[in-house]
Amino acid sequence: MKIKVVSNILKANDSIAEENRQLFKNNKLFVMNLISSPGAGKTSLLERTIKACNGKISIGVIEGDIATTRDAERIEKTGARVIQINTNGACHLDSNMIRTSLQNFPLNGLDILFIENVGNLVCPANFHLGEDIKAVVLSIAEGEDKPKKYPGIFREARVLIINKIDLLPYTDCSIDKIKNESLEINPDLNIFEVSCRSGDGLDRWCNWVKAQKEEKK
Amino acid sequence: MKIKVVSNILKANDSIAEENRQLFKNNKLFVMNLISSPGAGKTSLLERTIKACNGKISIGVIEGDIATTRDAERIEKTGARVIQINTNGACHLDSNMIRTSLQNFPLNGLDILFIENVGNLVCPANFHLGEDIKAVVLSIAEGEDKPKKYPGIFREARVLIINKIDLLPYTDCSIDKIKNESLEINPDLNIFEVSCRSGDGLDRWCNWVKAQKEEKK
Repeated sequence: MKIKVVSNILKANDSIAEENRQLFKNNKLFVMNLISSPGAGKTSLLERTIKACNGKISIGVIEGDIATTRDAERIEKTGARVIQINTNGACHLDSNMIRTSLQNFPLNGLDILFIENVGNLVCPANFHLGEDIKAVVLSIAEGEDKPKKYPGIFREARVLIINKIDLLPYTDCSIDKIKNESLEINPDLNIFEVSCRSGDGLDRWCNWVKAQKEEKK
Repeated sequence: MKIKVVSNILKANDSIAEENRQLFKNNKLFVMNLISSPGAGKTSLLERTIKACNGKISIGVIEGDIATTRDAERIEKTGARVIQINTNGACHLDSNMIRTSLQNFPLNGLDILFIENVGNLVCPANFHLGEDIKAVVLSIAEGEDKPKKYPGIFREARVLIINKIDLLPYTDCSIDKIKNESLEINPDLNIFEVSCRSGDGLDRWCNWVKAQKEEKK
Protein backbone atom coordinates (compact mmCIF):
# COMPACT_ATOMS: atom_id res chain seq x y z
CA MET A 1 0.00 0.00 0.00
CA LYS A 2 2.68 2.46 1.03
CA ILE A 3 4.76 1.36 -1.96
CA LYS A 4 1.83 1.86 -4.33
CA VAL A 5 1.30 5.40 -3.06
CA VAL A 6 4.97 6.19 -3.57
CA SER A 7 4.90 4.72 -7.06
CA ASN A 8 1.84 6.82 -7.96
CA ILE A 9 3.54 9.96 -6.67
CA LEU A 10 6.63 9.21 -8.76
CA LYS A 11 4.50 8.55 -11.86
CA ALA A 12 2.66 11.87 -11.47
CA ASN A 13 6.01 13.58 -10.94
CA ASP A 14 7.49 12.04 -14.10
CA SER A 15 4.61 13.22 -16.23
CA ILE A 16 5.03 16.89 -15.18
CA ALA A 17 8.81 16.49 -15.54
CA GLU A 18 8.21 15.60 -19.20
CA GLU A 19 6.27 18.85 -19.69
CA ASN A 20 9.12 20.80 -18.09
CA ARG A 21 11.60 18.97 -20.32
CA GLN A 22 9.67 19.98 -23.43
CA LEU A 23 9.60 23.60 -22.31
CA PHE A 24 13.36 23.57 -21.66
CA LYS A 25 13.93 21.97 -25.08
CA ASN A 26 11.84 24.63 -26.82
CA ASN A 27 14.06 27.23 -25.16
CA LYS A 28 17.27 25.37 -26.18
CA LEU A 29 18.23 25.39 -22.54
CA PHE A 30 20.72 23.00 -20.92
CA VAL A 31 19.36 22.13 -17.46
CA MET A 32 21.37 20.61 -14.61
CA ASN A 33 19.86 19.32 -11.34
CA LEU A 34 22.49 19.72 -8.59
CA ILE A 35 22.20 17.26 -5.72
CA SER A 36 24.30 16.81 -2.56
CA SER A 37 24.32 16.54 1.22
CA PRO A 38 23.82 19.81 3.13
CA GLY A 39 26.97 21.91 2.96
CA ALA A 40 28.81 20.04 0.19
CA GLY A 41 29.16 23.34 -1.66
CA LYS A 42 26.44 23.50 -4.34
CA THR A 43 25.87 27.26 -3.94
CA SER A 44 29.60 28.01 -3.85
CA LEU A 45 30.06 25.98 -7.03
CA LEU A 46 27.31 28.00 -8.70
CA GLU A 47 28.82 31.32 -7.58
CA ARG A 48 32.19 30.28 -9.00
CA THR A 49 30.70 28.93 -12.24
CA ILE A 50 28.62 32.05 -12.88
CA LYS A 51 31.61 34.33 -12.30
CA ALA A 52 33.84 32.22 -14.57
CA CYS A 53 31.25 32.26 -17.37
CA ASN A 54 30.56 35.94 -16.94
CA GLY A 55 29.39 37.48 -20.19
CA LYS A 56 30.01 34.35 -22.25
CA ILE A 57 27.04 32.31 -21.04
CA SER A 58 23.75 33.46 -19.58
CA ILE A 59 22.99 31.38 -16.49
CA GLY A 60 19.76 31.11 -14.52
CA VAL A 61 19.34 29.42 -11.13
CA ILE A 62 16.36 27.90 -9.33
CA GLU A 63 17.25 27.56 -5.64
CA GLY A 64 15.54 24.85 -3.60
CA ASP A 65 15.61 25.03 0.19
CA ILE A 66 13.45 23.91 3.06
CA ALA A 67 13.62 27.39 4.57
CA THR A 68 15.29 30.80 4.11
CA THR A 69 16.21 32.72 0.93
CA ARG A 70 19.92 32.74 1.76
CA ASP A 71 21.10 30.84 -1.29
CA ALA A 72 19.06 32.95 -3.72
CA GLU A 73 20.52 36.09 -2.11
CA ARG A 74 24.03 34.76 -2.66
CA ILE A 75 23.29 34.00 -6.31
CA GLU A 76 21.59 37.37 -6.83
CA LYS A 77 24.86 39.09 -5.94
CA THR A 78 26.53 37.44 -8.95
CA GLY A 79 24.02 39.13 -11.24
CA ALA A 80 22.48 35.87 -12.44
CA ARG A 81 18.71 35.49 -12.78
CA VAL A 82 17.47 33.52 -9.75
CA ILE A 83 14.32 32.37 -8.01
CA GLN A 84 13.96 30.68 -4.61
CA ILE A 85 11.64 27.76 -3.89
CA ASN A 86 10.97 27.05 -0.21
CA THR A 87 9.67 23.52 0.27
CA ASN A 88 8.49 24.23 3.86
CA GLY A 89 9.82 20.96 5.21
CA ALA A 90 9.76 18.77 2.11
CA CYS A 91 13.02 16.91 1.60
CA HIS A 92 13.34 17.33 -2.19
CA LEU A 93 12.18 19.42 -5.14
CA ASP A 94 9.52 17.90 -7.37
CA SER A 95 8.58 18.65 -10.97
CA ASN A 96 5.44 20.56 -10.01
CA MET A 97 7.43 22.97 -7.82
CA ILE A 98 9.63 23.65 -10.85
CA ARG A 99 6.63 24.12 -13.14
CA THR A 100 5.06 26.56 -10.68
CA SER A 101 8.26 28.55 -10.17
CA LEU A 102 8.67 28.92 -13.96
CA GLN A 103 5.53 31.06 -14.01
CA ASN A 104 7.61 33.76 -12.33
CA PHE A 105 10.92 32.96 -13.97
CA PRO A 106 11.31 33.88 -17.66
CA LEU A 107 13.60 31.54 -19.60
CA ASN A 108 14.20 33.80 -22.59
CA GLY A 109 17.84 34.64 -23.21
CA LEU A 110 19.17 31.95 -20.86
CA ASP A 111 21.71 29.35 -22.04
CA ILE A 112 21.96 27.20 -18.95
CA LEU A 113 19.62 26.63 -16.01
CA PHE A 114 20.94 25.18 -12.76
CA ILE A 115 18.43 23.76 -10.32
CA GLU A 116 19.97 23.54 -6.85
CA ASN A 117 18.05 20.87 -4.98
CA VAL A 118 17.42 20.64 -1.21
CA GLY A 119 20.54 19.43 0.64
CA ASN A 120 19.86 15.70 0.80
CA LEU A 121 21.87 12.87 -0.73
CA VAL A 122 18.92 10.47 -0.74
CA CYS A 123 15.44 11.65 -1.73
CA PRO A 124 16.12 14.06 -4.63
CA ALA A 125 17.63 11.20 -6.68
CA ASN A 126 14.17 9.74 -7.34
CA PHE A 127 12.39 12.89 -8.46
CA HIS A 128 13.09 13.91 -12.05
CA LEU A 129 12.46 17.60 -12.69
CA GLY A 130 12.79 17.69 -16.49
CA GLU A 131 16.57 18.29 -16.37
CA ASP A 132 19.10 17.15 -18.97
CA ILE A 133 21.36 15.68 -16.32
CA LYS A 134 21.71 15.26 -12.58
CA ALA A 135 25.05 16.19 -11.02
CA VAL A 136 26.12 15.04 -7.56
CA VAL A 137 28.46 17.18 -5.45
CA LEU A 138 30.44 15.42 -2.71
CA SER A 139 32.66 17.25 -0.22
CA ILE A 140 35.81 15.31 0.70
CA ALA A 141 35.01 16.19 4.33
CA GLU A 142 32.09 13.75 4.08
CA GLY A 143 34.52 10.86 3.70
CA GLU A 144 35.54 8.38 1.04
CA ASP A 145 32.88 5.77 1.90
CA LYS A 146 29.84 7.68 0.70
CA PRO A 147 29.21 6.39 -2.87
CA LYS A 148 28.40 2.81 -1.84
CA LYS A 149 26.45 3.98 1.21
CA TYR A 150 24.27 6.28 -0.94
CA PRO A 151 24.34 4.49 -4.29
CA GLY A 152 21.06 5.85 -5.69
CA ILE A 153 22.27 9.30 -6.66
CA PHE A 154 25.60 7.98 -7.95
CA ARG A 155 23.63 5.73 -10.29
CA GLU A 156 21.36 8.56 -11.47
CA ALA A 157 24.01 11.25 -11.95
CA ARG A 158 25.99 11.87 -15.12
CA VAL A 159 28.53 14.06 -13.32
CA LEU A 160 30.32 13.88 -9.96
CA ILE A 161 31.97 17.03 -8.60
CA ILE A 162 34.35 16.25 -5.72
CA ASN A 163 34.59 19.52 -3.80
CA LYS A 164 36.73 20.95 -0.96
CA ILE A 165 39.91 19.24 -2.17
CA ASP A 166 41.80 22.01 -0.31
CA LEU A 167 40.90 20.12 2.90
CA LEU A 168 42.62 16.89 1.75
CA PRO A 169 45.79 17.40 3.87
CA TYR A 170 43.65 17.69 7.02
CA THR A 171 41.42 14.63 6.56
CA ASP A 172 41.84 10.87 6.06
CA CYS A 173 39.96 10.93 2.78
CA SER A 174 41.31 9.35 -0.41
CA ILE A 175 40.06 10.86 -3.67
CA ASP A 176 41.05 7.68 -5.51
CA LYS A 177 38.73 5.65 -3.29
CA ILE A 178 35.84 8.03 -3.98
CA LYS A 179 36.50 7.81 -7.71
CA ASN A 180 36.89 4.02 -7.77
CA GLU A 181 33.71 3.41 -5.77
CA SER A 182 31.72 5.87 -7.82
CA LEU A 183 32.86 4.36 -11.12
CA GLU A 184 32.04 0.86 -9.87
CA ILE A 185 28.46 2.05 -9.38
CA ASN A 186 28.36 4.11 -12.57
CA PRO A 187 31.21 3.69 -15.10
CA ASP A 188 29.89 6.60 -17.20
CA LEU A 189 30.33 9.24 -14.47
CA ASN A 190 32.23 12.31 -15.56
CA ILE A 191 34.33 13.29 -12.52
CA PHE A 192 35.69 16.72 -11.58
CA GLU A 193 37.92 17.54 -8.58
CA VAL A 194 37.56 21.13 -7.41
CA SER A 195 37.98 23.51 -4.52
CA CYS A 196 35.47 26.33 -4.56
CA ARG A 197 37.56 27.99 -1.85
CA SER A 198 40.96 28.00 -3.63
CA GLY A 199 39.61 27.84 -7.18
CA ASP A 200 41.57 24.68 -8.02
CA GLY A 201 40.07 22.55 -10.77
CA LEU A 202 37.34 25.03 -11.69
CA ASP A 203 38.72 25.81 -15.16
CA ARG A 204 38.18 22.27 -16.38
CA TRP A 205 34.68 22.23 -14.86
CA CYS A 206 33.66 25.57 -16.38
CA ASN A 207 34.95 24.54 -19.81
CA TRP A 208 32.83 21.42 -19.61
CA VAL A 209 29.77 23.49 -18.66
CA LYS A 210 30.35 25.80 -21.62
CA ALA A 211 30.64 22.81 -23.95
CA GLN A 212 27.21 21.58 -22.83
CA LYS A 213 25.73 24.89 -23.90
CA GLU A 214 27.36 24.61 -27.35
CA GLU A 215 25.98 21.10 -27.83
CA LYS A 216 22.48 22.31 -27.05
CA LYS A 217 22.36 25.19 -29.52
CA MET B 1 -4.50 13.46 -0.20
CA LYS B 2 -0.73 13.21 -0.13
CA ILE B 3 -0.69 15.03 3.22
CA LYS B 4 -3.28 12.67 4.67
CA VAL B 5 -1.21 9.66 3.66
CA VAL B 6 1.87 11.16 5.28
CA SER B 7 -0.04 11.95 8.45
CA ASN B 8 -1.35 8.37 8.63
CA ILE B 9 2.16 7.00 8.18
CA LEU B 10 3.44 9.22 10.99
CA LYS B 11 0.58 8.19 13.29
CA ALA B 12 1.29 4.48 12.72
CA ASN B 13 4.97 5.17 13.32
CA ASP B 14 4.30 6.98 16.60
CA SER B 15 2.23 4.11 17.95
CA ILE B 16 5.01 1.54 17.40
CA ALA B 17 7.52 4.05 18.77
CA GLU B 18 5.52 4.07 22.03
CA GLU B 19 5.85 0.27 22.26
CA ASN B 20 9.61 0.55 21.71
CA ARG B 21 9.78 3.28 24.36
CA GLN B 22 8.04 1.03 26.89
CA LEU B 23 10.45 -1.80 26.14
CA PHE B 24 13.44 0.51 26.58
CA LYS B 25 11.98 1.81 29.84
CA ASN B 26 11.49 -1.72 31.17
CA ASN B 27 15.17 -2.33 30.47
CA LYS B 28 16.21 0.96 32.16
CA LEU B 29 17.95 1.86 28.94
CA PHE B 30 18.87 5.40 27.87
CA VAL B 31 18.30 5.62 24.09
CA MET B 32 19.71 8.28 21.78
CA ASN B 33 18.72 8.72 18.13
CA LEU B 34 21.73 10.23 16.28
CA ILE B 35 20.85 12.30 13.21
CA SER B 36 23.05 14.20 10.74
CA SER B 37 23.97 14.78 7.11
CA PRO B 38 26.06 12.06 5.46
CA GLY B 39 29.64 12.21 6.71
CA ALA B 40 29.16 14.53 9.69
CA GLY B 41 30.84 11.94 11.89
CA LYS B 42 28.13 9.94 13.68
CA THR B 43 30.03 6.64 13.49
CA SER B 44 33.33 8.25 14.51
CA LEU B 45 31.58 9.84 17.50
CA LEU B 46 30.24 6.43 18.52
CA GLU B 47 33.66 4.77 18.17
CA ARG B 48 35.19 7.47 20.38
CA THR B 49 32.37 7.37 22.93
CA ILE B 50 32.44 3.58 23.26
CA LYS B 51 36.22 3.59 23.75
CA ALA B 52 36.02 6.38 26.35
CA CYS B 53 33.30 4.56 28.29
CA ASN B 54 35.08 1.23 28.04
CA GLY B 55 34.20 -1.00 30.95
CA LYS B 56 32.24 1.68 32.79
CA ILE B 57 29.12 1.68 30.64
CA SER B 58 27.73 -1.05 28.42
CA ILE B 59 26.78 0.46 25.06
CA GLY B 60 24.74 -1.05 22.24
CA VAL B 61 24.38 0.36 18.73
CA ILE B 62 21.73 -0.01 16.03
CA GLU B 63 23.23 1.13 12.73
CA GLY B 64 20.91 2.47 10.03
CA ASP B 65 22.14 2.74 6.45
CA ILE B 66 20.63 2.62 3.00
CA ALA B 67 23.25 0.09 1.94
CA THR B 68 26.42 -1.71 3.16
CA THR B 69 27.34 -2.99 6.64
CA ARG B 70 30.40 -0.75 6.88
CA ASP B 71 29.31 1.18 9.94
CA ALA B 72 28.34 -1.94 11.89
CA GLU B 73 31.74 -3.45 11.07
CA ARG B 74 33.46 -0.36 12.44
CA ILE B 75 31.43 -0.51 15.67
CA GLU B 76 32.00 -4.27 15.99
CA LYS B 77 35.75 -3.64 16.22
CA THR B 78 35.18 -1.61 19.42
CA GLY B 79 33.63 -4.66 21.06
CA ALA B 80 30.19 -3.07 21.47
CA ARG B 81 27.03 -5.03 20.70
CA VAL B 82 25.79 -3.90 17.28
CA ILE B 83 23.21 -4.68 14.62
CA GLN B 84 22.88 -3.22 11.12
CA ILE B 85 19.60 -2.20 9.51
CA ASN B 86 19.70 -1.67 5.72
CA THR B 87 16.76 0.42 4.57
CA ASN B 88 17.31 -0.48 0.88
CA GLY B 89 16.76 3.04 -0.35
CA ALA B 90 14.53 4.46 2.40
CA CYS B 91 15.76 7.84 3.64
CA HIS B 92 15.18 7.34 7.38
CA LEU B 93 14.71 4.69 10.06
CA ASP B 94 11.17 4.13 11.31
CA SER B 95 9.92 2.62 14.55
CA ASN B 96 8.95 -0.66 12.93
CA MET B 97 12.48 -1.21 11.62
CA ILE B 98 13.70 -0.73 15.19
CA ARG B 99 11.08 -3.12 16.60
CA THR B 100 12.02 -5.76 14.05
CA SER B 101 15.75 -5.41 14.64
CA LEU B 102 15.23 -5.82 18.40
CA GLN B 103 14.09 -9.41 17.77
CA ASN B 104 17.75 -10.16 17.00
CA PHE B 105 19.31 -7.73 19.42
CA PRO B 106 19.11 -8.57 23.14
CA LEU B 107 18.91 -5.53 25.40
CA ASN B 108 19.88 -7.27 28.63
CA GLY B 109 22.92 -5.83 30.34
CA LEU B 110 23.01 -2.67 28.22
CA ASP B 111 23.07 0.79 29.81
CA ILE B 112 22.85 2.96 26.72
CA LEU B 113 21.57 2.30 23.21
CA PHE B 114 22.62 4.54 20.34
CA ILE B 115 20.56 4.43 17.16
CA GLU B 116 22.56 5.84 14.26
CA ASN B 117 20.06 7.02 11.68
CA VAL B 118 20.49 7.19 7.90
CA GLY B 119 22.66 10.18 6.88
CA ASN B 120 19.98 12.77 6.18
CA LEU B 121 19.40 16.09 7.95
CA VAL B 122 15.74 16.26 6.90
CA CYS B 123 13.52 13.17 6.97
CA PRO B 124 14.66 11.37 10.16
CA ALA B 125 13.53 14.35 12.28
CA ASN B 126 9.85 13.41 11.80
CA PHE B 127 10.08 9.72 12.67
CA HIS B 128 10.21 8.98 16.39
CA LEU B 129 11.74 5.59 17.18
CA GLY B 130 10.99 5.37 20.90
CA GLU B 131 14.22 7.14 21.89
CA ASP B 132 14.73 9.30 24.99
CA ILE B 133 16.31 12.06 22.96
CA LYS B 134 17.38 12.96 19.44
CA ALA B 135 20.89 14.35 18.97
CA VAL B 136 21.98 16.21 15.87
CA VAL B 137 25.60 16.09 14.71
CA LEU B 138 26.84 18.93 12.48
CA SER B 139 30.29 19.02 10.89
CA ILE B 140 31.78 22.51 10.71
CA ALA B 141 32.72 21.68 7.11
CA GLU B 142 29.00 21.89 6.31
CA GLY B 143 29.01 25.61 7.06
CA GLU B 144 27.56 27.93 9.66
CA ASP B 145 24.27 28.55 7.84
CA LYS B 146 22.77 25.09 8.33
CA PRO B 147 20.52 25.43 11.43
CA LYS B 148 18.06 27.89 9.88
CA LYS B 149 18.14 26.10 6.52
CA TYR B 150 17.26 22.77 8.17
CA PRO B 151 15.32 23.91 11.24
CA GLY B 152 13.25 20.75 11.79
CA ILE B 153 15.94 18.62 13.38
CA PHE B 154 17.31 21.54 15.43
CA ARG B 155 13.82 21.94 16.91
CA GLU B 156 13.45 18.22 17.66
CA ALA B 157 16.91 17.60 19.10
CA ARG B 158 17.90 17.97 22.75
CA VAL B 159 21.62 17.89 21.95
CA LEU B 160 23.81 19.41 19.23
CA ILE B 161 27.29 17.99 18.69
CA ILE B 162 29.43 20.28 16.52
CA ASN B 163 32.10 17.99 15.07
CA LYS B 164 35.35 18.39 13.09
CA ILE B 165 36.42 21.53 14.98
CA ASP B 166 40.00 20.60 14.00
CA LEU B 167 39.10 21.88 10.50
CA LEU B 168 38.17 25.37 11.78
CA PRO B 169 41.45 27.04 10.70
CA TYR B 170 40.90 25.84 7.11
CA THR B 171 37.27 26.94 6.63
CA ASP B 172 35.22 30.14 6.87
CA CYS B 173 32.90 28.66 9.48
CA SER B 174 32.09 30.44 12.75
CA ILE B 175 31.13 28.20 15.66
CA ASP B 176 29.48 31.14 17.39
CA LYS B 177 27.15 31.61 14.42
CA ILE B 178 26.19 27.92 14.50
CA LYS B 179 25.51 28.16 18.23
CA ASN B 180 23.54 31.40 18.04
CA GLU B 181 21.33 30.22 15.17
CA SER B 182 20.73 26.86 16.81
CA LEU B 183 19.77 28.44 20.12
CA GLU B 184 17.41 30.86 18.38
CA ILE B 185 15.55 27.84 17.01
CA ASN B 186 15.81 25.82 20.23
CA PRO B 187 17.01 27.60 23.40
CA ASP B 188 17.14 24.30 25.32
CA LEU B 189 19.79 22.71 23.09
CA ASN B 190 22.75 21.27 24.95
CA ILE B 191 25.77 22.02 22.74
CA PHE B 192 29.09 20.16 22.54
CA GLU B 193 32.09 21.09 20.38
CA VAL B 194 34.29 18.13 19.50
CA SER B 195 36.81 16.75 17.08
CA CYS B 196 36.58 13.00 16.69
CA ARG B 197 39.90 13.16 14.84
CA SER B 198 41.97 14.98 17.49
CA GLY B 199 39.88 13.99 20.50
CA ASP B 200 39.24 17.61 21.54
CA GLY B 201 36.06 18.16 23.55
CA LEU B 202 35.22 14.49 23.90
CA ASP B 203 35.76 14.33 27.68
CA ARG B 204 32.88 16.74 28.36
CA TRP B 205 30.66 14.85 25.92
CA CYS B 206 31.44 11.42 27.40
CA ASN B 207 30.86 12.68 30.93
CA TRP B 208 27.46 13.95 29.86
CA VAL B 209 26.64 10.57 28.29
CA LYS B 210 27.62 8.79 31.50
CA ALA B 211 25.41 11.14 33.52
CA GLN B 212 22.40 10.21 31.38
CA LYS B 213 22.94 6.57 32.28
CA GLU B 214 23.06 7.43 36.00
CA GLU B 215 19.79 9.38 35.75
CA LYS B 216 18.08 6.39 34.16
CA LYS B 217 19.03 3.80 36.76
